Amino acid sequence: MPTDLSRLCIHSITTKPWPLDVAIDKFSAAGIGGISVWQDAAEAIGFQRARQLLEASPLEVVSYVRGGFFPHHSREARQRALDDNRRLLDEAASLGAPLLVLVCGAEPRQSLTESRHQIQAGIESLIDHAAGCGVKMAIEPLHPMYADTRSAINTLGQANRVAEAIGHEQVGIAVDVYHLWWDDQLEEEIRRCGANDNLYAFHICDWKVPTSDMLLDRGLMGEGCIDVPRIRGWVEDTGFTGLHEVEIFSNAYWASDQDEFLQRILAAYRQHS
Amino acid sequence: MPTDLSRLCIHSITTKPWPLDVAIDKFSAAGIGGISVWQDAAEAIGFQRARQLLEASPLEVVSYVRGGFFPHHSREARQRALDDNRRLLDEAASLGAPLLVLVCGAEPRQSLTESRHQIQAGIESLIDHAAGCGVKMAIEPLHPMYADTRSAINTLGQANRVAEAIGHEQVGIAVDVYHLWWDDQLEEEIRRCGANDNLYAFHICDWKVPTSDMLLDRGLMGEGCIDVPRIRGWVEDTGFTGLHEVEIFSNAYWASDQDEFLQRILAAYRQHS
Repeated sequence: MPTDLSRLCIHSITTKPWPLDVAIDKFSAAGIGGISVWQDAAEAIGFQRARQLLEASPLEVVSYVRGGFFPHHSREARQRALDDNRRLLDEAASLGAPLLVLVCGAEPRQSLTESRHQIQAGIESLIDHAAGCGVKMAIEPLHPMYADTRSAINTLGQANRVAEAIGHEQVGIAVDVYHLWWDDQLEEEIRRCGANDNLYAFHICDWKVPTSDMLLDRGLMGEGCIDVPRIRGWVEDTGFTGLHEVEIFSNAYWASDQDEFLQRILAAYRQHS
Repeated sequence: MPTDLSRLCIHSITTKPWPLDVAIDKFSAAGIGGISVWQDAAEAIGFQRARQLLEASPLEVVSYVRGGFFPHHSREARQRALDDNRRLLDEAASLGAPLLVLVCGAEPRQSLTESRHQIQAGIESLIDHAAGCGVKMAIEPLHPMYADTRSAINTLGQANRVAEAIGHEQVGIAVDVYHLWWDDQLEEEIRRCGANDNLYAFHICDWKVPTSDMLLDRGLMGEGCIDVPRIRGWVEDTGFTGLHEVEIFSNAYWASDQDEFLQRILAAYRQHS
Protein backbone atom coordinates (compact mmCIF):
# COMPACT_ATOMS: atom_id res chain seq x y z
CA MET A 1 0.00 0.00 0.00
CA PRO A 2 1.21 3.59 -0.66
CA THR A 3 2.96 5.03 2.40
CA ASP A 4 2.91 8.64 1.28
CA LEU A 5 0.65 10.84 -0.77
CA SER A 6 3.11 12.08 -3.37
CA ARG A 7 1.68 9.84 -6.07
CA LEU A 8 -1.93 10.51 -5.19
CA CYS A 9 -3.85 12.69 -7.63
CA ILE A 10 -7.51 13.60 -7.34
CA HIS A 11 -9.80 14.58 -10.19
CA SER A 12 -11.55 17.88 -9.58
CA ILE A 13 -14.89 16.22 -10.29
CA THR A 14 -14.34 13.85 -7.36
CA THR A 15 -15.01 16.77 -5.01
CA LYS A 16 -17.42 18.40 -7.43
CA PRO A 17 -19.09 20.71 -4.87
CA TRP A 18 -15.77 22.53 -4.41
CA PRO A 19 -14.96 25.22 -6.97
CA LEU A 20 -11.54 24.60 -8.53
CA ASP A 21 -9.82 27.24 -6.42
CA VAL A 22 -11.08 25.58 -3.24
CA ALA A 23 -10.07 22.13 -4.49
CA ILE A 24 -6.56 23.38 -5.29
CA ASP A 25 -6.25 24.81 -1.76
CA LYS A 26 -7.63 21.72 -0.05
CA PHE A 27 -5.64 19.22 -2.11
CA SER A 28 -2.45 21.25 -1.55
CA ALA A 29 -3.04 21.46 2.18
CA ALA A 30 -3.62 17.69 2.30
CA GLY A 31 -0.19 17.13 0.82
CA ILE A 32 -1.25 15.10 -2.20
CA GLY A 33 0.85 15.05 -5.34
CA GLY A 34 -1.45 16.08 -8.11
CA ILE A 35 -4.75 17.17 -9.57
CA SER A 36 -6.57 16.33 -12.77
CA VAL A 37 -8.70 19.23 -13.91
CA TRP A 38 -12.15 18.90 -15.46
CA GLN A 39 -13.08 21.40 -18.14
CA ASP A 40 -16.16 22.82 -16.45
CA ALA A 41 -14.28 23.40 -13.19
CA ALA A 42 -11.55 25.40 -14.94
CA GLU A 43 -14.01 27.31 -17.09
CA ALA A 44 -16.04 28.31 -14.02
CA ILE A 45 -13.14 30.22 -12.44
CA GLY A 46 -11.49 31.22 -15.73
CA PHE A 47 -8.48 29.57 -17.37
CA GLN A 48 -6.06 32.37 -16.53
CA ARG A 49 -6.90 32.28 -12.83
CA ALA A 50 -6.88 28.47 -12.85
CA ARG A 51 -3.39 28.45 -14.36
CA GLN A 52 -2.10 30.99 -11.82
CA LEU A 53 -3.49 29.02 -8.91
CA LEU A 54 -2.13 25.74 -10.24
CA GLU A 55 1.31 27.23 -10.87
CA ALA A 56 1.38 28.70 -7.37
CA SER A 57 0.38 25.37 -5.83
CA PRO A 58 2.62 22.38 -5.15
CA LEU A 59 0.26 20.21 -7.21
CA GLU A 60 1.31 18.49 -10.40
CA VAL A 61 -1.33 18.92 -13.10
CA VAL A 62 -1.72 15.34 -14.27
CA SER A 63 -4.43 15.52 -16.89
CA TYR A 64 -7.21 17.59 -18.39
CA VAL A 65 -10.60 15.94 -18.66
CA ARG A 66 -12.22 15.27 -21.05
CA GLY A 67 -12.09 15.36 -24.82
CA GLY A 68 -13.37 12.83 -27.31
CA PHE A 69 -16.99 12.13 -28.36
CA PHE A 70 -15.96 11.75 -31.98
CA PRO A 71 -18.78 9.64 -33.50
CA HIS A 72 -21.74 11.50 -34.97
CA HIS A 73 -24.19 10.95 -37.77
CA SER A 74 -23.39 14.11 -39.66
CA ARG A 75 -20.10 15.35 -40.99
CA GLU A 76 -20.86 18.74 -39.46
CA ALA A 77 -21.25 17.28 -35.97
CA ARG A 78 -18.02 15.33 -36.38
CA GLN A 79 -16.27 18.51 -37.47
CA ARG A 80 -17.62 20.37 -34.44
CA ALA A 81 -16.26 17.59 -32.22
CA LEU A 82 -12.81 18.03 -33.72
CA ASP A 83 -13.01 21.78 -33.20
CA ASP A 84 -14.02 21.18 -29.59
CA ASN A 85 -11.10 18.83 -29.10
CA ARG A 86 -8.61 21.34 -30.55
CA ARG A 87 -9.94 23.91 -28.10
CA LEU A 88 -9.61 21.39 -25.25
CA LEU A 89 -6.02 20.70 -26.26
CA ASP A 90 -5.34 24.44 -26.19
CA GLU A 91 -6.96 24.70 -22.77
CA ALA A 92 -4.93 21.75 -21.48
CA ALA A 93 -1.75 23.47 -22.65
CA SER A 94 -2.83 26.74 -21.08
CA LEU A 95 -3.26 24.96 -17.73
CA GLY A 96 0.05 23.14 -18.00
CA ALA A 97 -1.64 19.75 -18.30
CA PRO A 98 0.46 17.29 -20.33
CA LEU A 99 -2.43 14.97 -21.15
CA LEU A 100 -6.00 15.20 -22.45
CA VAL A 101 -8.19 12.22 -21.52
CA LEU A 102 -10.47 11.04 -24.33
CA VAL A 103 -13.91 9.60 -23.69
CA CYS A 104 -14.21 8.46 -27.25
CA GLY A 105 -17.98 8.55 -27.74
CA ALA A 106 -20.60 6.36 -29.42
CA GLU A 107 -23.61 7.05 -31.59
CA PRO A 108 -26.38 4.50 -30.94
CA ARG A 109 -28.05 5.19 -34.30
CA GLN A 110 -25.06 3.88 -36.24
CA SER A 111 -23.03 0.68 -36.02
CA LEU A 112 -20.24 0.30 -33.50
CA THR A 113 -17.94 -0.39 -36.43
CA GLU A 114 -18.78 2.99 -37.95
CA SER A 115 -18.35 4.74 -34.59
CA ARG A 116 -14.98 3.05 -34.14
CA HIS A 117 -13.78 4.22 -37.55
CA GLN A 118 -14.83 7.75 -36.69
CA ILE A 119 -13.02 7.57 -33.35
CA GLN A 120 -9.74 6.48 -34.88
CA ALA A 121 -10.00 9.00 -37.70
CA GLY A 122 -10.85 11.74 -35.22
CA ILE A 123 -7.89 11.02 -32.97
CA GLU A 124 -5.51 10.83 -35.93
CA SER A 125 -6.67 14.17 -37.24
CA LEU A 126 -5.81 15.79 -33.89
CA ILE A 127 -2.24 14.53 -33.62
CA ASP A 128 -0.54 17.50 -35.25
CA HIS A 129 -2.49 19.99 -33.18
CA ALA A 130 -1.80 18.03 -29.99
CA ALA A 131 1.92 17.87 -30.79
CA GLY A 132 1.93 21.59 -31.41
CA CYS A 133 0.37 22.12 -27.98
CA GLY A 134 2.75 19.71 -26.29
CA VAL A 135 -0.26 17.78 -25.01
CA LYS A 136 -0.64 14.02 -25.36
CA MET A 137 -3.99 12.24 -25.64
CA ALA A 138 -5.12 9.18 -23.68
CA ILE A 139 -7.83 6.88 -25.00
CA GLU A 140 -9.84 5.79 -21.96
CA PRO A 141 -11.62 2.49 -22.60
CA LEU A 142 -15.00 2.73 -20.89
CA HIS A 143 -17.03 -0.01 -19.25
CA PRO A 144 -19.20 -1.90 -21.77
CA MET A 145 -22.32 -0.57 -20.05
CA TYR A 146 -21.44 2.78 -21.68
CA ALA A 147 -21.13 1.40 -25.21
CA ASP A 148 -24.44 2.89 -26.30
CA THR A 149 -23.68 6.60 -25.99
CA ARG A 150 -20.35 7.23 -24.22
CA SER A 151 -17.68 5.06 -25.78
CA ALA A 152 -17.38 2.41 -28.44
CA ILE A 153 -13.94 1.54 -26.98
CA ASN A 154 -14.71 -0.86 -24.15
CA THR A 155 -11.75 -3.06 -23.31
CA LEU A 156 -8.06 -2.47 -22.84
CA GLY A 157 -7.41 -4.97 -25.60
CA GLN A 158 -9.45 -2.86 -27.98
CA ALA A 159 -7.78 0.37 -26.82
CA ASN A 160 -4.40 -1.28 -27.31
CA ARG A 161 -5.34 -2.24 -30.86
CA VAL A 162 -6.47 1.32 -31.64
CA ALA A 163 -3.41 2.94 -30.06
CA GLU A 164 -1.10 0.52 -31.87
CA ALA A 165 -2.89 1.13 -35.17
CA ILE A 166 -2.39 4.88 -34.69
CA GLY A 167 1.18 4.26 -33.62
CA HIS A 168 2.10 7.78 -32.53
CA GLU A 169 3.63 8.83 -29.21
CA GLN A 170 1.06 11.61 -29.00
CA VAL A 171 -1.60 8.95 -28.36
CA GLY A 172 -1.71 6.52 -25.44
CA ILE A 173 -4.20 5.01 -23.00
CA ALA A 174 -5.74 5.77 -19.61
CA VAL A 175 -6.34 2.61 -17.56
CA ASP A 176 -9.27 3.02 -15.16
CA VAL A 177 -9.96 0.13 -12.79
CA TYR A 178 -13.70 0.93 -12.74
CA HIS A 179 -14.03 0.26 -16.46
CA LEU A 180 -11.67 -2.67 -16.78
CA TRP A 181 -11.51 -4.67 -13.53
CA TRP A 182 -13.79 -7.50 -14.73
CA ASP A 183 -11.74 -8.45 -17.80
CA ASP A 184 -9.97 -11.82 -17.65
CA GLN A 185 -7.43 -10.43 -20.15
CA LEU A 186 -6.59 -7.36 -18.06
CA GLU A 187 -3.20 -8.40 -16.71
CA GLU A 188 -2.00 -9.44 -20.16
CA GLU A 189 -3.36 -6.29 -21.82
CA ILE A 190 -1.78 -4.03 -19.18
CA ARG A 191 1.53 -5.73 -19.87
CA ARG A 192 1.04 -5.18 -23.61
CA CYS A 193 0.01 -1.56 -23.04
CA GLY A 194 3.15 -0.89 -21.04
CA ALA A 195 5.42 -2.79 -23.42
CA ASN A 196 4.24 -0.54 -26.25
CA ASP A 197 4.78 2.59 -24.13
CA ASN A 198 1.06 3.35 -24.29
CA LEU A 199 0.19 3.39 -20.58
CA TYR A 200 -0.23 7.12 -19.97
CA ALA A 201 -2.57 7.30 -16.96
CA PHE A 202 -3.99 5.19 -14.13
CA HIS A 203 -7.38 5.92 -12.54
CA ILE A 204 -8.71 4.32 -9.36
CA CYS A 205 -11.97 4.02 -7.41
CA ASP A 206 -14.15 0.99 -6.62
CA TRP A 207 -17.23 -0.89 -7.89
CA LYS A 208 -19.88 -0.94 -5.19
CA VAL A 209 -21.94 -4.08 -4.52
CA PRO A 210 -24.71 -3.38 -5.32
CA THR A 211 -24.27 -0.43 -7.67
CA SER A 212 -27.40 1.72 -7.58
CA ASP A 213 -26.69 4.00 -10.54
CA MET A 214 -24.85 3.20 -13.75
CA LEU A 215 -23.01 6.53 -13.74
CA LEU A 216 -23.02 8.22 -10.34
CA ASP A 217 -22.46 5.51 -7.73
CA ARG A 218 -18.73 4.86 -7.78
CA GLY A 219 -17.12 3.85 -4.52
CA LEU A 220 -13.94 4.67 -2.65
CA MET A 221 -11.12 2.16 -2.93
CA GLY A 222 -11.83 -0.70 -0.53
CA GLU A 223 -15.56 -0.13 -0.60
CA GLY A 224 -16.33 -2.56 -3.39
CA CYS A 225 -15.06 -5.61 -5.20
CA ILE A 226 -12.16 -4.28 -7.28
CA ASP A 227 -8.73 -5.50 -6.23
CA VAL A 228 -7.06 -2.11 -6.76
CA PRO A 229 -3.66 -3.05 -5.26
CA ARG A 230 -3.41 -6.04 -7.57
CA ILE A 231 -4.21 -4.02 -10.69
CA ARG A 232 -1.85 -1.24 -9.52
CA GLY A 233 0.82 -3.91 -9.21
CA TRP A 234 0.28 -4.97 -12.82
CA VAL A 235 0.45 -1.33 -13.92
CA GLU A 236 3.64 -0.61 -12.00
CA ASP A 237 5.25 -3.84 -13.18
CA THR A 238 5.27 -2.23 -16.63
CA GLY A 239 7.47 0.57 -15.31
CA PHE A 240 4.65 3.08 -14.91
CA THR A 241 5.77 5.84 -12.55
CA GLY A 242 2.83 8.21 -12.94
CA LEU A 243 0.32 9.28 -10.36
CA HIS A 244 -2.68 7.31 -9.12
CA GLU A 245 -5.74 9.36 -10.03
CA VAL A 246 -8.84 9.09 -7.87
CA GLU A 247 -11.85 9.72 -10.11
CA ILE A 248 -15.17 9.19 -8.35
CA PHE A 249 -18.62 10.24 -9.57
CA SER A 250 -20.97 9.78 -6.66
CA ASN A 251 -24.20 11.51 -5.82
CA ALA A 252 -23.84 10.20 -2.27
CA TYR A 253 -20.32 11.57 -1.76
CA TRP A 254 -21.12 14.86 -3.48
CA ALA A 255 -23.99 15.31 -1.02
CA SER A 256 -21.65 14.75 1.94
CA ASP A 257 -19.21 17.07 3.72
CA GLN A 258 -16.30 17.44 1.27
CA ASP A 259 -13.62 17.93 3.93
CA GLU A 260 -14.60 14.65 5.53
CA PHE A 261 -14.79 13.02 2.12
CA LEU A 262 -11.25 14.19 1.33
CA GLN A 263 -10.02 12.58 4.55
CA ARG A 264 -11.79 9.37 3.56
CA ILE A 265 -10.10 9.47 0.16
CA LEU A 266 -6.67 9.79 1.82
CA ALA A 267 -7.44 6.90 4.19
CA ALA A 268 -8.80 4.72 1.38
CA TYR A 269 -5.74 5.49 -0.72
CA ARG A 270 -3.38 4.51 2.09
CA GLN A 271 -5.24 1.34 3.03
CA HIS A 272 -6.78 -0.01 -0.16
CA SER A 273 -4.75 1.11 -3.15
CA MET B 1 -35.68 -10.94 -41.32
CA PRO B 2 -37.50 -14.11 -40.23
CA THR B 3 -40.61 -14.73 -42.34
CA ASP B 4 -42.22 -17.30 -40.06
CA LEU B 5 -42.32 -18.00 -36.35
CA SER B 6 -41.08 -21.59 -36.34
CA ARG B 7 -37.68 -20.60 -35.01
CA LEU B 8 -39.01 -18.14 -32.46
CA CYS B 9 -38.77 -19.26 -28.84
CA ILE B 10 -39.83 -17.18 -25.84
CA HIS B 11 -38.52 -17.53 -22.31
CA SER B 12 -41.29 -17.97 -19.78
CA ILE B 13 -39.85 -15.10 -17.75
CA THR B 14 -40.41 -12.75 -20.70
CA THR B 15 -44.14 -12.90 -19.97
CA LYS B 16 -43.59 -13.33 -16.25
CA PRO B 17 -47.14 -12.35 -15.19
CA TRP B 18 -48.50 -15.42 -17.01
CA PRO B 19 -48.34 -18.71 -15.11
CA LEU B 20 -46.57 -21.37 -17.15
CA ASP B 21 -49.80 -23.08 -18.21
CA VAL B 22 -51.11 -19.80 -19.60
CA ALA B 23 -47.81 -19.06 -21.34
CA ILE B 24 -47.84 -22.51 -22.97
CA ASP B 25 -51.38 -21.90 -24.25
CA LYS B 26 -50.66 -18.39 -25.51
CA PHE B 27 -47.35 -19.26 -27.15
CA SER B 28 -48.91 -22.31 -28.81
CA ALA B 29 -51.85 -20.28 -30.10
CA ALA B 30 -49.45 -17.67 -31.50
CA GLY B 31 -47.75 -20.34 -33.56
CA ILE B 32 -44.25 -19.87 -32.26
CA GLY B 33 -41.75 -22.71 -32.32
CA GLY B 34 -40.53 -23.04 -28.78
CA ILE B 35 -40.39 -22.13 -25.14
CA SER B 36 -37.58 -21.90 -22.63
CA VAL B 37 -38.81 -22.67 -19.15
CA TRP B 38 -37.67 -20.89 -16.00
CA GLN B 39 -37.42 -22.94 -12.84
CA ASP B 40 -39.81 -20.90 -10.72
CA ALA B 41 -42.48 -21.00 -13.43
CA ALA B 42 -42.36 -24.81 -13.64
CA GLU B 43 -42.21 -25.23 -9.90
CA ALA B 44 -45.26 -23.04 -9.43
CA ILE B 45 -47.52 -25.34 -11.43
CA GLY B 46 -45.65 -28.55 -10.59
CA PHE B 47 -43.16 -30.40 -12.79
CA GLN B 48 -45.50 -33.25 -13.67
CA ARG B 49 -48.23 -30.92 -14.88
CA ALA B 50 -45.67 -28.74 -16.67
CA ARG B 51 -44.34 -31.77 -18.51
CA GLN B 52 -47.83 -32.92 -19.52
CA LEU B 53 -48.75 -29.50 -20.85
CA LEU B 54 -45.47 -29.15 -22.72
CA GLU B 55 -45.80 -32.61 -24.27
CA ALA B 56 -49.37 -31.88 -25.32
CA SER B 57 -48.33 -28.57 -26.89
CA PRO B 58 -46.69 -28.05 -30.27
CA LEU B 59 -43.87 -26.16 -28.56
CA GLU B 60 -40.28 -27.34 -28.59
CA VAL B 61 -38.75 -27.08 -25.11
CA VAL B 62 -35.51 -25.28 -25.94
CA SER B 63 -33.84 -24.79 -22.59
CA TYR B 64 -34.31 -24.82 -18.84
CA VAL B 65 -33.20 -21.70 -16.99
CA ARG B 66 -31.11 -21.37 -14.93
CA GLY B 67 -28.35 -23.24 -13.16
CA GLY B 68 -24.90 -22.07 -12.19
CA PHE B 69 -23.89 -19.74 -9.34
CA PHE B 70 -20.88 -21.89 -8.53
CA PRO B 71 -18.53 -19.49 -6.69
CA HIS B 72 -18.88 -19.24 -2.93
CA HIS B 73 -16.59 -18.59 -0.01
CA SER B 74 -17.27 -21.84 1.80
CA ARG B 75 -16.90 -25.39 0.61
CA GLU B 76 -20.36 -26.10 2.02
CA ALA B 77 -21.97 -23.39 -0.09
CA ARG B 78 -20.17 -24.61 -3.20
CA GLN B 79 -21.39 -28.14 -2.46
CA ARG B 80 -24.94 -26.88 -2.07
CA ALA B 81 -24.65 -25.16 -5.44
CA LEU B 82 -23.61 -28.45 -7.04
CA ASP B 83 -26.52 -30.23 -5.40
CA ASP B 84 -28.85 -27.51 -6.69
CA ASN B 85 -27.47 -27.90 -10.18
CA ARG B 86 -27.90 -31.67 -10.14
CA ARG B 87 -31.52 -31.13 -9.15
CA LEU B 88 -31.93 -28.59 -11.95
CA LEU B 89 -30.48 -31.06 -14.44
CA ASP B 90 -33.00 -33.65 -13.22
CA GLU B 91 -35.82 -31.11 -13.56
CA ALA B 92 -34.66 -30.19 -17.07
CA ALA B 93 -34.74 -33.85 -18.04
CA SER B 94 -38.17 -34.27 -16.48
CA LEU B 95 -39.47 -31.40 -18.62
CA GLY B 96 -37.86 -32.72 -21.78
CA ALA B 97 -35.47 -29.75 -21.97
CA PRO B 98 -32.20 -30.70 -23.69
CA LEU B 99 -30.21 -27.80 -22.26
CA LEU B 100 -29.62 -26.14 -18.88
CA VAL B 101 -28.46 -22.52 -19.11
CA LEU B 102 -25.73 -21.62 -16.62
CA VAL B 103 -25.45 -18.17 -15.06
CA CYS B 104 -22.07 -18.98 -13.65
CA GLY B 105 -22.02 -16.73 -10.58
CA ALA B 106 -19.46 -14.49 -8.86
CA GLU B 107 -18.52 -13.87 -5.26
CA PRO B 108 -17.46 -10.24 -4.72
CA ARG B 109 -15.53 -11.09 -1.54
CA GLN B 110 -13.04 -13.23 -3.41
CA SER B 111 -10.93 -12.66 -6.52
CA LEU B 112 -12.36 -13.13 -9.97
CA THR B 113 -9.59 -15.65 -10.57
CA GLU B 114 -10.79 -17.75 -7.64
CA SER B 115 -14.42 -17.47 -8.76
CA ARG B 116 -13.40 -18.54 -12.25
CA HIS B 117 -11.60 -21.61 -10.94
CA GLN B 118 -14.66 -22.55 -8.93
CA ILE B 119 -16.88 -22.10 -11.98
CA GLN B 120 -14.83 -24.39 -14.17
CA ALA B 121 -14.45 -26.98 -11.42
CA GLY B 122 -18.17 -26.82 -10.71
CA ILE B 123 -19.16 -27.36 -14.33
CA GLU B 124 -16.68 -30.21 -14.74
CA SER B 125 -18.04 -31.97 -11.68
CA LEU B 126 -21.55 -31.93 -13.19
CA ILE B 127 -20.67 -33.47 -16.54
CA ASP B 128 -21.35 -37.09 -15.61
CA HIS B 129 -24.67 -36.24 -14.01
CA ALA B 130 -25.68 -34.11 -16.98
CA ALA B 131 -24.74 -36.87 -19.41
CA GLY B 132 -26.78 -39.32 -17.37
CA CYS B 133 -29.76 -36.97 -17.65
CA GLY B 134 -29.25 -36.39 -21.35
CA VAL B 135 -29.11 -32.67 -20.66
CA LYS B 136 -26.35 -30.41 -21.97
CA MET B 137 -25.17 -27.26 -20.21
CA ALA B 138 -24.63 -23.83 -21.75
CA ILE B 139 -22.28 -21.29 -20.18
CA GLU B 140 -23.91 -17.91 -20.69
CA PRO B 141 -21.35 -15.12 -20.61
CA LEU B 142 -22.99 -12.19 -18.83
CA HIS B 143 -22.48 -8.47 -19.42
CA PRO B 144 -19.49 -7.11 -17.47
CA MET B 145 -21.85 -4.97 -15.38
CA TYR B 146 -22.84 -8.25 -13.67
CA ALA B 147 -19.28 -9.31 -12.83
CA ASP B 148 -19.68 -8.46 -9.15
CA THR B 149 -22.35 -10.96 -8.14
CA ARG B 150 -23.87 -12.73 -11.16
CA SER B 151 -21.10 -14.01 -13.40
CA ALA B 152 -17.34 -13.91 -13.57
CA ILE B 153 -17.61 -15.04 -17.22
CA ASN B 154 -18.15 -11.81 -19.14
CA THR B 155 -17.12 -12.15 -22.76
CA LEU B 156 -17.63 -14.74 -25.44
CA GLY B 157 -13.86 -15.03 -25.75
CA GLN B 158 -13.65 -15.99 -22.10
CA ALA B 159 -16.58 -18.41 -22.39
CA ASN B 160 -14.89 -19.96 -25.42
CA ARG B 161 -11.68 -20.45 -23.44
CA VAL B 162 -13.56 -22.09 -20.56
CA ALA B 163 -15.62 -24.34 -22.83
CA GLU B 164 -12.51 -25.33 -24.79
CA ALA B 165 -10.59 -26.04 -21.58
CA ILE B 166 -13.43 -28.30 -20.42
CA GLY B 167 -13.59 -29.85 -23.88
CA HIS B 168 -16.69 -31.99 -23.44
CA GLU B 169 -19.75 -32.08 -25.68
CA GLN B 170 -21.94 -31.87 -22.59
CA VAL B 171 -20.79 -28.24 -22.18
CA GLY B 172 -21.33 -25.40 -24.65
CA ILE B 173 -22.27 -21.72 -24.72
CA ALA B 174 -25.40 -19.54 -24.87
CA VAL B 175 -24.83 -16.38 -26.90
CA ASP B 176 -27.07 -13.53 -25.72
CA VAL B 177 -26.93 -10.30 -27.70
CA TYR B 178 -27.72 -8.22 -24.60
CA HIS B 179 -24.55 -9.33 -22.86
CA LEU B 180 -22.20 -9.39 -25.82
CA TRP B 181 -23.25 -6.83 -28.44
CA TRP B 182 -20.61 -4.22 -27.51
CA ASP B 183 -17.58 -6.48 -27.98
CA ASP B 184 -15.31 -5.66 -30.93
CA GLN B 185 -14.24 -9.32 -30.94
CA LEU B 186 -17.79 -10.69 -31.13
CA GLU B 187 -17.88 -11.72 -34.78
CA GLU B 188 -14.56 -13.53 -34.47
CA GLU B 189 -15.53 -15.22 -31.20
CA ILE B 190 -18.90 -16.36 -32.59
CA ARG B 191 -17.03 -17.92 -35.48
CA ARG B 192 -14.67 -19.65 -33.06
CA CYS B 193 -17.57 -20.78 -30.88
CA GLY B 194 -19.30 -22.34 -33.85
CA ALA B 195 -16.14 -23.87 -35.26
CA ASN B 196 -15.63 -25.69 -31.96
CA ASP B 197 -19.26 -26.87 -31.92
CA ASN B 198 -19.87 -24.89 -28.75
CA LEU B 199 -22.71 -22.62 -29.88
CA TYR B 200 -25.68 -24.19 -28.12
CA ALA B 201 -28.18 -21.33 -27.78
CA PHE B 202 -28.94 -17.84 -29.09
CA HIS B 203 -30.83 -15.25 -27.02
CA ILE B 204 -32.19 -11.96 -28.33
CA CYS B 205 -33.63 -8.68 -27.01
CA ASP B 206 -32.32 -5.11 -27.20
CA TRP B 207 -30.32 -2.55 -25.20
CA LYS B 208 -32.45 0.53 -24.57
CA VAL B 209 -30.97 4.03 -24.84
CA PRO B 210 -31.01 5.10 -22.08
CA THR B 211 -31.23 2.02 -19.89
CA SER B 212 -32.93 2.92 -16.62
CA ASP B 213 -32.22 -0.24 -14.65
CA MET B 214 -29.20 -2.51 -14.81
CA LEU B 215 -31.33 -5.66 -14.63
CA LEU B 216 -34.97 -5.05 -15.48
CA ASP B 217 -35.06 -2.65 -18.42
CA ARG B 218 -34.35 -4.80 -21.44
CA GLY B 219 -35.98 -3.79 -24.70
CA LEU B 220 -37.71 -5.52 -27.58
CA MET B 221 -35.65 -6.10 -30.68
CA GLY B 222 -35.56 -2.85 -32.66
CA GLU B 223 -36.12 -0.71 -29.62
CA GLY B 224 -32.47 -0.09 -28.83
CA CYS B 225 -29.00 -0.02 -30.31
CA ILE B 226 -28.17 -3.71 -30.81
CA ASP B 227 -27.93 -4.81 -34.44
CA VAL B 228 -29.70 -8.13 -33.83
CA PRO B 229 -29.97 -9.18 -37.50
CA ARG B 230 -26.25 -8.69 -37.96
CA ILE B 231 -25.35 -10.78 -34.92
CA ARG B 232 -27.92 -13.41 -35.92
CA GLY B 233 -26.20 -13.53 -39.29
CA TRP B 234 -22.85 -14.24 -37.65
CA VAL B 235 -24.47 -16.95 -35.52
CA GLU B 236 -26.16 -18.62 -38.48
CA ASP B 237 -23.03 -18.38 -40.60
CA THR B 238 -21.55 -20.94 -38.19
CA GLY B 239 -24.28 -23.41 -39.14
CA PHE B 240 -26.43 -22.79 -36.07
CA THR B 241 -29.95 -24.03 -36.75
CA GLY B 242 -31.42 -23.62 -33.27
CA LEU B 243 -34.21 -21.34 -32.18
CA HIS B 244 -34.00 -17.61 -31.49
CA GLU B 245 -34.90 -17.18 -27.83
CA VAL B 246 -36.49 -13.92 -26.72
CA GLU B 247 -35.45 -13.31 -23.12
CA ILE B 248 -36.60 -9.96 -21.77
CA PHE B 249 -36.61 -8.82 -18.15
CA SER B 250 -38.62 -5.62 -18.05
CA ASN B 251 -40.60 -4.05 -15.25
CA ALA B 252 -42.32 -1.89 -17.86
CA TYR B 253 -43.40 -4.80 -20.07
CA TRP B 254 -44.38 -6.96 -17.10
CA ALA B 255 -46.68 -4.15 -15.97
CA SER B 256 -48.34 -4.03 -19.39
CA ASP B 257 -51.06 -6.19 -20.98
CA GLN B 258 -49.31 -9.49 -21.76
CA ASP B 259 -51.43 -10.34 -24.81
CA GLU B 260 -50.49 -7.03 -26.38
CA PHE B 261 -46.89 -7.57 -25.35
CA LEU B 262 -46.87 -10.98 -27.04
CA GLN B 263 -48.11 -9.38 -30.26
CA ARG B 264 -45.33 -6.80 -29.98
CA ILE B 265 -42.77 -9.58 -29.52
CA LEU B 266 -44.00 -11.26 -32.72
CA ALA B 267 -43.86 -8.01 -34.64
CA ALA B 268 -40.40 -7.13 -33.29
CA TYR B 269 -39.18 -10.61 -34.17
CA ARG B 270 -40.46 -10.31 -37.74
CA GLN B 271 -39.16 -6.79 -38.30
CA HIS B 272 -35.99 -6.46 -36.25
CA SER B 273 -34.39 -9.86 -35.79
